[in-house]
Amino acid sequence: MEKVANNLMFPCKHKQTGCRMSLGLNEKAEHEEVCEFRPYSCPCPGASCSWQGQLEKVMVHLQHAHQNITTLNGEDIVFLATEINLPGAVDWVMMQSCFGHHFMLILEKQEKCDGHTQFFAIVQLIGSRKQAEHFAYRLELNGNRRRLTWEAMPRSSHEGVASAIMGSDCLVFDTSIAQLFADNGNLGINVTISIVC
Amino acid sequence: MEKVANNLMFPCKHKQTGCRMSLGLNEKAEHEEVCEFRPYSCPCPGASCSWQGQLEKVMVHLQHAHQNITTLNGEDIVFLATEINLPGAVDWVMMQSCFGHHFMLILEKQEKCDGHTQFFAIVQLIGSRKQAEHFAYRLELNGNRRRLTWEAMPRSSHEGVASAIMGSDCLVFDTSIAQLFADNGNLGINVTISIVC
Repeated sequence: MEKVANNLMFPCKHKQTGCRMSLGLNEKAEHEEVCEFRPYSCPCPGASCSWQGQLEKVMVHLQHAHQNITTLNGEDIVFLATEINLPGAVDWVMMQSCFGHHFMLILEKQEKCDGHTQFFAIVQLIGSRKQAEHFAYRLELNGNRRRLTWEAMPRSSHEGVASAIMGSDCLVFDTSIAQLFADNGNLGINVTISIVC
Repeated sequence: MEKVANNLMFPCKHKQTGCRMSLGLNEKAEHEEVCEFRPYSCPCPGASCSWQGQLEKVMVHLQHAHQNITTLNGEDIVFLATEINLPGAVDWVMMQSCFGHHFMLILEKQEKCDGHTQFFAIVQLIGSRKQAEHFAYRLELNGNRRRLTWEAMPRSSHEGVASAIMGSDCLVFDTSIAQLFADNGNLGINVTISIVC
């Protein structure tokens, strides 16, 4: 009976949103977890928002449910994180719109158990991984004859940024560096998005 | 009696190597600690070498007492740190010669008490702080569609690099980042020295 079930093919549960794959029972669950037609989750960092929906609805959701998130237009903007010295874990979030796409800029402050504080800055595209592959982003801290730069491919909001931040696959810096570049407790991060040919 | 002593002026103890300052007793010791005519210490990281001497003698000392340090010529070179996965605190050191000056490239691996490993990369000029102000250096990790860059003024070997490393005023990255950019346990750091106008 099990053998028969393994030979049968079932359509992906995201068939209605466009997936045409049919899979054996064993592969089906695994595929559906990463299927590019699965619904998007709210891209805000942290797990406080449980919204899910289609890609086209993500910006509408953000504009309604997260009205405090600023959007700047252009491929070259400044992401200003204010009061970076406030204690505790904090997220700074803003949107950047360019090239007909929306990107979420995230600066996350984490306090490790030994009192060591780290900042993680990353960019994610509101879109699929395939779409993200066409872009590159640059984050730059500037000042006092110093410059720290991180360049990478944006994360897809389908993948989320948590694993990248956990694995330091983003711009990482500690409090000393933040102080070097901050002005009166406010840290400006130059963000540039570009198209990769 | 104390008042009289405070009004007297004494020459700096580095008079013979060129310092022309005379100072009151209170300021004299403080000045001599940072006097630009004081002898240079061996610029190798760590405190294992107690050599001190004139600036012109530093390279001679390095060539004799630290023969394992490679020197590359040119303003744009690759600093290859091999076997970065070896456990424990390790220093990688090499020299770069360009613009008629010698620069020491240092990569230091530190293991924090909580098991968190950090790498610190920095460039110091074999020369005074005034000389260092005429240069800038860029350290670059490259690969897998990612780039991490740090640009700053070189440290002077008179100041040493310990305080900069302690304060993260250098290129800082952790093991995850090192793995992203390393090839088979070997990490290449692109180093570019330039003249600041």
